Amino acid sequence: EFGDDLCNHYTYVMCGDGCLMEGISEEAISLAGLWKLNKLIVFWDNNNITIDGTVDKANGTNQIARFKAVGWNTISVDGRSHEEIAAAIEQAQKSDKPTLIACKTTIGFGAPHKQGTSKVHGSPLGAEELEAMRQNLGWTAAPFEVPNEIMAAWRAAGQRSAAQYAEWQKKAENNQKFIDYINDMLPANWSKDLDELKKKTIKEQNAVATRKASQLCLENIMGRIPQVIGGSADLAASNLTFVAGMKTITAADYNGNNVMYGIREHAMGAIMNGMALHGGVIPYGGTFFVFSDYMRPSMRLAALMGLRVVYVLTHDSIGVGEDGPTHQPIEHLASYRAMPNIYTFRPCDVVETAEAWQIALESEKTPSILALSRQSVPTLRTDSAENLSKRGGYVISKAQREPQATIIATGTEVSLAVAAQKQLNESGIAVNVVSMPCCELFDQQPEDYKRSVLGNAPRVAVEAAAVYGWERYTGKSENVIGLNSFGASGKGDEVYKHFGITVENVVKKVRELI
Amino acid sequence: EFGDDLCNHYTYVMCGDGCLMEGISEEAISLAGLWKLNKLIVFWDNNNITIDGTVDKANGTNQIARFKAVGWNTISVDGRSHEEIAAAIEQAQKSDKPTLIACKTTIGFGAPHKQGTSKVHGSPLGAEELEAMRQNLGWTAAPFEVPNEIMAAWRAAGQRSAAQYAEWQKKAENNQKFIDYINDMLPANWSKDLDELKKKTIKEQNAVATRKASQLCLENIMGRIPQVIGGSADLAASNLTFVAGMKTITAADYNGNNVMYGIREHAMGAIMNGMALHGGVIPYGGTFFVFSDYMRPSMRLAALMGLRVVYVLTHDSIGVGEDGPTHQPIEHLASYRAMPNIYTFRPCDVVETAEAWQIALESEKTPSILALSRQSVPTLRTDSAENLSKRGGYVISKAQREPQATIIATGTEVSLAVAAQKQLNESGIAVNVVSMPCCELFDQQPEDYKRSVLGNAPRVAVEAAAVYGWERYTGKSENVIGLNSFGASGKGDEVYKHFGITVENVVKKVRELI
Repeated sequence: EFGDDLCNHYTYVMCGDGCLMEGISEEAISLAGLWKLNKLIVFWDNNNITIDGTVDKANGTNQIARFKAVGWNTISVDGRSHEEIAAAIEQAQKSDKPTLIACKTTIGFGAPHKQGTSKVHGSPLGAEELEAMRQNLGWTAAPFEVPNEIMAAWRAAGQRSAAQYAEWQKKAENNQKFIDYINDMLPANWSKDLDELKKKTIKEQNAVATRKASQLCLENIMGRIPQVIGGSADLAASNLTFVAGMKTITAADYNGNNVMYGIREHAMGAIMNGMALHGGVIPYGGTFFVFSDYMRPSMRLAALMGLRVVYVLTHDSIGVGEDGPTHQPIEHLASYRAMPNIYTFRPCDVVETAEAWQIALESEKTPSILALSRQSVPTLRTDSAENLSKRGGYVISKAQREPQATIIATGTEVSLAVAAQKQLNESGIAVNVVSMPCCELFDQQPEDYKRSVLGNAPRVAVEAAAVYGWERYTGKSENVIGLNSFGASGKGDEVYKHFGITVENVVKKVRELI
Repeated sequence: EFGDDLCNHYTYVMCGDGCLMEGISEEAISLAGLWKLNKLIVFWDNNNITIDGTVDKANGTNQIARFKAVGWNTISVDGRSHEEIAAAIEQAQKSDKPTLIACKTTIGFGAPHKQGTSKVHGSPLGAEELEAMRQNLGWTAAPFEVPNEIMAAWRAAGQRSAAQYAEWQKKAENNQKFIDYINDMLPANWSKDLDELKKKTIKEQNAVATRKASQLCLENIMGRIPQVIGGSADLAASNLTFVAGMKTITAADYNGNNVMYGIREHAMGAIMNGMALHGGVIPYGGTFFVFSDYMRPSMRLAALMGLRVVYVLTHDSIGVGEDGPTHQPIEHLASYRAMPNIYTFRPCDVVETAEAWQIALESEKTPSILALSRQSVPTLRTDSAENLSKRGGYVISKAQREPQATIIATGTEVSLAVAAQKQLNESGIAVNVVSMPCCELFDQQPEDYKRSVLGNAPRVAVEAAAVYGWERYTGKSENVIGLNSFGASGKGDEVYKHFGITVENVVKKVRELI
C-alpha cells in the first residue's frame, strides 16, 4: 500500500525451548511458512534447560527439521558468537522465507556450579556463585554499573541510524494517509453506512440471524475503513466474516484484507493482537463461540494490553441445535463478563448488531466480543437515532402502565421476552423489557440510570446460557431463566423447550413474583 | 504392571487436516514421539479439504517431515486401498515408534460434481448428486439398507476374535487387582493417612501455603492409591506436584507415576482426559492457575464427559506478587464456577486442602480444580471429624452472639475474614465467618442448610479475584470485596493492599451494612 521505502522493517522474535513446546508455536510457524513471511526472524535460545530440568526429559523434537517441514529457512549458530549471529541475520534478511536462527547457548554461562542447569532459570545465583561467575567472566564493574566503553558502544549503536530514521520520519510525516493508518484513525463518516443500515432495517422489518446482521455490517464497514482486516479460523461460511470485495492475503500478494487462518483459533487470537499492537490495521476474527476457549489466552492478553480486536463469535447458544453440547456455549458469556476490560456484546437484532460494531471499532483500548446467533430474530428496535447499546442495557419495550416486573434479556431471548410481555399484558400484567447487549457497559453507567432501567419491581432475567452472574441484576438465582448444565442435541427450538427457555416459563416466573 | 498378555492393545486415531493444524496436535505428537508410544497408530485422512476450501489455502506443512521431526514412523498409502492399509497397520504394529499412516483420499468420492470439494464437508449432497454418486459407485441397495454379503462380512469380523477375547476376559476376571484398577476402585482405607494429616495439622497448627498442603496430601495419597498418576507442565517445583518416591515415566520405562508434560498445558489436559477414559489410572496435573486458560478446552471436555481428573492449579491470586498481571488470575474462579459439572475448590488451610483432595478422588463423574496459594495460611479448622468441604460452605468461625453480619470468604482470604471478625468483636460487633471452598457443592445443598450458613443478616464476601458471581450470595456487588480489573506487579501483601483486599476494608464494609 505505502511502498517499500515506508514499510520495510523486520520483526525479530526471541524465543526459548518452552515457547517452542506450546502448541501455538506450531500454529504460528505453519502460517508464517505458508505466507512466506521473510521479514520474520526468530532467534531460538537453545540452552536445553526449562524449569523442571533439561529439555530432553520433555522434548525430543528436531527443531531444525520441524521448521523446515513448515517452509522455513533455518540457520544454526554458536549463540555466543557475535560474528556468527551477525552473519546469520544478514543471511536471514535476504531469505524469501521466514528464518529460524538456532542459537546454541549455555544458561547462566560462567556460573561455575549452576551454568547449564535449571537452577539459573528462575532463582538468583546467590552471592558466592555470583562472585565466582564475575571472576570467570573477568567482569570487574560494580553491580548495575555499565563500563564506559560499553556504554559508548551502545550509544553509538543507538545513533548509528539516526540520520536514516530522521529521513524516514520526514517521509512518513508528509504522507497523511500513512499517519492516519498507523494511528488507527477512523475515516470521517466511517459509520454513516451503518446508520443507514439501521434505518433501512427498521423500515423493512427484516428478520435475520445476528451473524447475518454482522455480515451486513461488514459490507458497510469494509468499504469505509481500509485498515480493517478480517478472517476466520476455517469457518468463514458459518461466521459470515467474508463479504464481497474482500481479497485473501497470500504469499504471492499481501495486499489483501481477508486472512484464512485455518483451524488455528489460538494463533488467530495472537496474530490479531500482533496486528493491533503493530498499528495500521484493525483486526477482526471469527470462530464458533464455543471454540473461543482455544484462543482465550490471547483474548485475555488483548484485554490486559488494551487492544482494539473484534471477535466475531457465532453460534452463540444451545440454539445451534444438532451439533450438540460440544458446540453449544453455556458458560462462555459469564466467563467473558468476569474478565476485565473486554466487552461481551450479545445483540438482539440488526440495529443492536450495528451498534455493537460501532462501539467495538471506536473502543481503542478494549477488545470486543460479538456473540451472534445462527437462528433468525425479528427487528425489535423502532428507532436508531441514539446508539442505545452504548448504555449496555436499556428498556427496549416499555410497559403500557406502571410496570409490575422487569424482564431482562439478551440476544435471541429479547424477542422471547417481548412475546412474554405481550402475553402478560393481555392478562393485565404490565412489564418492562430490558435488552442488555453489554453488561460491562451497563455496569459503567451512573447509579440513577441503572435504577431507572432495572426498576424497583421484581426482575426476571432470561438468557440461553449459564445462570451464573445474573444475580447481579435479579438478586436471586431463582429469578434467572437459563441453564445449570451443558446443552443437548436436537433442533434448536426443541433444545430451548427442553431446557425451559420459553415464553411460557418467563410468563410463569413473572406471575410467581408479582 | 500386569504384563503384556493382559495389557497389549493398540490405540488407533482417525484424524483430519484440521486436527493437524490445531496447536494441540504438535504438543501431543511431540510427547508421543519422545515417549516412543509405539502402540499409537494415527490415520490421517489426507483429503486436502477443510470447510473453507482446499488445505493449501491455509496450510503448507509437509506432514511426513513434521512427524519425522518428532520421532515418528511414517507410512503413506492410498486411502482407498484395503490392501495397502492392512499392510501399513501390520508394519506400524511392529514399529518401535508411534506411526502416522498418511492416507490419500478424496472427500465425497464418487459424487460427480462435489467430490474433492468443501461442498461435501458439512452439507448433504442433495438428491440428484446422491443418485449420480450411487450410480458411479455401483451402489444399488436402498438407503440405510446393508446388503447381506456386507453384513455377513462385518459380522464375521466381529466374531473373528471372539475366542481370543473370551480367553482374555477369563484371564482378566481372575486378576482382582487388574479388575479393581480398570474399575478405578479406590483401595480400602485409602483416605486414612489424609485423615491423620488433618488431625496432626490441627494439633501442630502449622502455617503453610495451600500448594504445600496439597503436596502433603499427595505424600499420603501416592502411597495408598497406586492408580494415581501425576505431573506438571514444567512447573513441578512450583506446583509441588512431585513427591518423594514418585518415578518419572520415560520411553525406556513406562512403569512410573510421574509425567513430565513439558510446557504443554493443552496436551496435559487432553492426555489426562484420555487416561481417565481409558481407566486404570486417576490423573492429576499441575500448572499455574492463570495458565489453565491454555487447557480450558480440555477441562470443558472433562466436565462434559464426566471424568475424574484433578487440576492442581497453584499461584491462585494476585498474591503471587512480582510476576505481575500476566501471572495473576482474576476471572478464573468465576469462569470455572460458571462451567457445568466441574468443582472449583479454593481451600483455606491444610484441612480443607485434604478434604478437597478426598472429594476430588471420590468424584468419579466430575473433574476438580484445586486453586492453591503460593503464600502461607494459618490452620483455621479446629476439628476434622467431618469433611465440611463436602457441604461446599460452612460457618468456620461462629459469632459469640447473634450475628449482625456474615462474612463469606475462600482460600487465603478466610484468615483475613477471621481477623476482621476479631476486630469487629472487640468493638462489640458479632459476625459469622463462612468458608466457601466450593460454591458448586454449596449450591447443591438443601435450601435450609444454605440459609442456616448464610444467615439473614447482611452478607459481605471477600475474595482476591473478580467480584463477578458473588452477588448470588450477597445480593449486591457493593457487598463484595474483590477486583474489577487486572492485577498489578509488586509484593503480594502490597498488591492486596493496593486493591483494598484488607482486614480494614472488610471491617469497614460490615460497619456500613449493620
